Amino acid sequence: MIIVMARGASDADIAAVVEKIRVAGLTEHVSSGTERTIIGAVGDERVLTADMFEPMSGVERAMRVVKEYRIVSREVHPDNTVVSVRGVPIGGKTIQVIAGPSSVETPEQMAASTRSVSAAGCRLLRGGAFKPRSSPYSFQGLGVEGLEYLQQAARAAGLPVVTELTDVRLLDTFLEYDVDVIQIGARNMQNSDLLKEVGRVNKPVILTRGLSATVNEWLMAAEYIAAGGNHNIVFCERGVRGFETAYRNMLDVTAIPILKRETHLPVIVDPSHAGGKAWLVPALAKAAIAAGADGLLIDVHPNPSEAWCDADQALTPSELATLMRELAPLAEALGRTL
Amino acid sequence: MIIVMARGASDADIAAVVEKIRVAGLTEHVSSGTERTIIGAVGDERVLTADMFEPMSGVERAMRVVKEYRIVSREVHPDNTVVSVRGVPIGGKTIQVIAGPSSVETPEQMAASTRSVSAAGCRLLRGGAFKPRSSPYSFQGLGVEGLEYLQQAARAAGLPVVTELTDVRLLDTFLEYDVDVIQIGARNMQNSDLLKEVGRVNKPVILTRGLSATVNEWLMAAEYIAAGGNHNIVFCERGVRGFETAYRNMLDVTAIPILKRETHLPVIVDPSHAGGKAWLVPALAKAAIAAGADGLLIDVHPNPSEAWCDADQALTPSELATLMRELAPLAEALGRTL
Amino acid sequence: MIIVMARGASDADIAAVVEKIRVAGLTEHVSSGTERTIIGAVGDERVLTADMFEPMSGVERAMRVVKEYRIVSREVHPDNTVVSVRGVPIGGKTIQVIAGPSSVETPEQMAASTRSVSAAGCRLLRGGAFKPRSSPYSFQGLGVEGLEYLQQAARAAGLPVVTELTDVRLLDTFLEYDVDVIQIGARNMQNSDLLKEVGRVNKPVILTRGLSATVNEWLMAAEYIAAGGNHNIVFCERGVRGFETAYRNMLDVTAIPILKRETHLPVIVDPSHAGGKAWLVPALAKAAIAAGADGLLIDVHPNPSEAWCDADQALTPSELATLMRELAPLAEALGRTL
Amino acid sequence: MIIVMARGASDADIAAVVEKIRVAGLTEHVSSGTERTIIGAVGDERVLTADMFEPMSGVERAMRVVKEYRIVSREVHPDNTVVSVRGVPIGGKTIQVIAGPSSVETPEQMAASTRSVSAAGCRLLRGGAFKPRSSPYSFQGLGVEGLEYLQQAARAAGLPVVTELTDVRLLDTFLEYDVDVIQIGARNMQNSDLLKEVGRVNKPVILTRGLSATVNEWLMAAEYIAAGGNHNIVFCERGVRGFETAYRNMLDVTAIPILKRETHLPVIVDPSHAGGKAWLVPALAKAAIAAGADGLLIDVHPNPSEAWCDADQALTPSELATLMRELAPLAEALGRTL
Repeated sequence: MIIVMARGASDADIAAVVEKIRVAGLTEHVSSGTERTIIGAVGDERVLTADMFEPMSGVERAMRVVKEYRIVSREVHPDNTVVSVRGVPIGGKTIQVIAGPSSVETPEQMAASTRSVSAAGCRLLRGGAFKPRSSPYSFQGLGVEGLEYLQQAARAAGLPVVTELTDVRLLDTFLEYDVDVIQIGARNMQNSDLLKEVGRVNKPVILTRGLSATVNEWLMAAEYIAAGGNHNIVFCERGVRGFETAYRNMLDVTAIPILKRETHLPVIVDPSHAGGKAWLVPALAKAAIAAGADGLLIDVHPNPSEAWCDADQALTPSELATLMRELAPLAEALGRTL
Repeated sequence: MIIVMARGASDADIAAVVEKIRVAGLTEHVSSGTERTIIGAVGDERVLTADMFEPMSGVERAMRVVKEYRIVSREVHPDNTVVSVRGVPIGGKTIQVIAGPSSVETPEQMAASTRSVSAAGCRLLRGGAFKPRSSPYSFQGLGVEGLEYLQQAARAAGLPVVTELTDVRLLDTFLEYDVDVIQIGARNMQNSDLLKEVGRVNKPVILTRGLSATVNEWLMAAEYIAAGGNHNIVFCERGVRGFETAYRNMLDVTAIPILKRETHLPVIVDPSHAGGKAWLVPALAKAAIAAGADGLLIDVHPNPSEAWCDADQALTPSELATLMRELAPLAEALGRTL
Repeated sequence: MIIVMARGASDADIAAVVEKIRVAGLTEHVSSGTERTIIGAVGDERVLTADMFEPMSGVERAMRVVKEYRIVSREVHPDNTVVSVRGVPIGGKTIQVIAGPSSVETPEQMAASTRSVSAAGCRLLRGGAFKPRSSPYSFQGLGVEGLEYLQQAARAAGLPVVTELTDVRLLDTFLEYDVDVIQIGARNMQNSDLLKEVGRVNKPVILTRGLSATVNEWLMAAEYIAAGGNHNIVFCERGVRGFETAYRNMLDVTAIPILKRETHLPVIVDPSHAGGKAWLVPALAKAAIAAGADGLLIDVHPNPSEAWCDADQALTPSELATLMRELAPLAEALGRTL
Repeated sequence: MIIVMARGASDADIAAVVEKIRVAGLTEHVSSGTERTIIGAVGDERVLTADMFEPMSGVERAMRVVKEYRIVSREVHPDNTVVSVRGVPIGGKTIQVIAGPSSVETPEQMAASTRSVSAAGCRLLRGGAFKPRSSPYSFQGLGVEGLEYLQQAARAAGLPVVTELTDVRLLDTFLEYDVDVIQIGARNMQNSDLLKEVGRVNKPVILTRGLSATVNEWLMAAEYIAAGGNHNIVFCERGVRGFETAYRNMLDVTAIPILKRETHLPVIVDPSHAGGKAWLVPALAKAAIAAGADGLLIDVHPNPSEAWCDADQALTPSELATLMRELAPLAEALGRTL
């Protein structure tokens, strides 16, 4: 922690800051400049916060030097982590494309979806049973019945499943249905009670970035999960809120290399939710892979214009197959495989 | 719903849209211009969504005409709603200032806080027992023990209490402790499971705006609560995420008159969390009142620089008293009382 | 400047940073912590920039301690500056409301506008002759003819005029027409050539904030003007770009107290352009004044729905008169006059 | 234009809207629904604006149907435009990488920079002679002397040059020095006087997106240039302002496919200014190409840590060479060449 004193801070002000540093078990390092005094707190900075110092008399600003995240940090774990989902690795040389419908609708729709996912060469199936929607009057997902249809289709095809958990009370149900990967959605990225609970189970977690979460907040949300003991975390970028109205959200492609530098955990991208339009998915998917993403999460539906939600963004089975064919040489050009 | 067809849409494209409108039970109104055809869907628009039409061949755009919120809408309830909290009205002529510490720490701290809140003339006490924090290593609140201290202090002073609920599993505990107003925090504004549950109880709810929620999404979140039967909802603006780094969040003062026009429910403002600095609170509090807010939510602490969280933003008891003295003539100039 | 070295920075890395500090004429202060070394550069920090150090080997981050602005800074000029416009003070106890039409249209429209501005008790007239528009096919302003009509109406009523300069080649024309206050619009806030030129003349300048300018960038833009010798600068907040679509721009009311702390110069607010709707103007105008603004810039038109541009946001003469009547007691409650 | 009347709009309100549509030379199409009346204006919508209708009594909203841009629109010019710069095509199958130092410093630095640009296989040289900076105390560029050094180096290597024009008064100098491509920087994207002037010359223009410009505003800025007769326009995305502080600006990769759909003109990306850090450039450059960009604009400097500005973001000559080697297979995988 660096504490910048205001011009004209008194000796007593400086002494009070020094005292507070010592009480916290750290050592001060006082540097008196021509205009200002700067005080460094040397020791385990993690017990300090800026707002322990900023309200004090004569203090202008306090700045953290060390990052707050630990377990998820690449600093403490330099090698890439590969998260294995029933043998399917996320975060290694192979790029994984997780595909499926935004919401589970019927056994037939799931069977058709799963066939198209398998046929396109994807190794993981997604499908939403519990849908967080903006309107209480919109379809909220089939619930437990949806988990049933999802697993039926997935098990028949031998694909592991990814599905979103929105309510902490449903975690046991997810475990009963043996969901392979629990997704935490954008709206729940800072639902710390939910994060703590999934931190206690032994299931891979896809942690979707909140719509206006900074990368630092996102890493701290992962730290909540990791602190509970579950280190099988995959970050999922799905666009952030911006001022542009020409598409739904702004895919933050820069977050990919930033995360790759800050954390050892895998990073995937959801181009379907980011752009909100099926025709944008191929360009965004390619950009994500080119920027270093370890995988994609893609909406596909046997008949998009009849989908019960997110109809606008789902690829048709044939569009998914085309995209997979186009991604293969791209992956190769980047030294990876699909 | 208005569906704008693309240039060059075929007759078959138009017929398909018309068919979909009819299947939904509405009537079409086709208007063929020089460049484009525009189709209006006449009837109960609420069963339609833009993405039912936008993926269809030949459709350029679909636009909703009627708002999605109903119960919270001023259109269906033109008069202001006054939410009564054990006899204290929020949303009437009187401006209510809810004050207290960000987090409950000790019985002594609560007693001192409550004295300063009462002494300043405030009629509602706040205090956090469950604290959603960015870091899992930060103080997470005293939990149930905090509810205990909060109610002890509040009952002694005869003040109703406001406290934040973060976990749906704690709702019964909140009811047992007879919490007077349940606050839903910014991070949980779109936690629909939590919204549905508080929609079923008979307690006033303060619904804090999410950091990047649009006013429309905020109204829809309130609609989730209202749809469950609980219409005692108070909106709380606390700043949104923006690009500016000179302060914490950007207080969206324009949202106040917008909400006042769109909904009959009361609107309050939290200038402490918005600006994130105690010295900003008076200016922001006055701006909020001048823009038409019905109340304020203010952090106060007997000794801010020793506060266990949000130390930077808490007023001292004497600063709160000064602010209340300054707000009184302002309220009067606006035709209200404090 | 504080330079934070990365974990594992070598002695040679540290030596190189120290050398660079010394070459720039400052002194280093090295503080070796348990995890990292932090180096302070003591002396005139203004010759240093973060990017002199950040690309160096072993450097994690460099942080400025002292602000970059000087002349406009309150640190070097603690007392408020009052900018006088032909005897009308901006920045003193009196709140000034500058009103007039967004664009000058005809002599008759200007005469009617000016009458309404005078009648409402405003002391400064605005009117646009050169209009920066989003579309090249929109009305671009009457140009020099507009300056003519503006001054005719203003001189007849004895009001000083404010009008926007968009093109550096027109500065002489503005001086010939004896424009009293030159406004720099949002789109030109970082047009440094224009800023330098108005920095050389002896006319008050209203510097409108750019749509996505930080407060720091805005202060630096003012510093461009001030560095040329012209210290008669008034800041004008008119809303920033955000994600909300319920209104045009987001009025950044927090910027008002921030500016008041950082600079000695006056601050006014343009609620008409911020909200973009006439019905929002009163609430935003009151919020601005309550937050500490020294004045307002308001669109008024004899017949808004026939205005040649910005029709949506102009008050009618009677709405302006009502607003002025409502602002008077508010100003008084804040210890000011209107 | 579609005009949505408010609930309860009177017959007189509707008649007034109809009258205004007719006066503008269009025909109305009135559609009376159960709750609201919707009026379509059929004919040349470009003479109408939303704010001609929105202030009228009984009008809730007016919405444009047809886009405002014409010449730059793909609707009127379906085939891709290839902009030729002294024989080097931008916008065709070949991806062009424009590289060079952010600012021209000395003949030696320009010679070394140009050698590295040529050696890496780039076909266009960039270099800044006039630098728009945030601080008036920062280096503002060498000015005309910089143009001299730039052209000397470029002509010796046979490379066309790209350089930024900030001041309309310098256009003739740019023509005298035979600058090959005029860049309009982010700060000047809405400097309409400058846009109009470069619209009158016969030189390709790179139009950089403003920091908070929507894609629509950007297209309208291009329309300003095109309306003057100059259709040789290249769009340059360089990141937009967002809330994230982990990097400088947010590269809006989604804008690439959006532009490709809306306009026939080429699109390039500046990953150096977007991310603001040299180490981010490769990932962002690859993402841009994968998303469909026609080229890149990249900062390179013989010795980045000694650069007079933007030191943090410049690649070394060897990093540029490596990037070019990595981009080649990527371009091929996308069906393009480098």
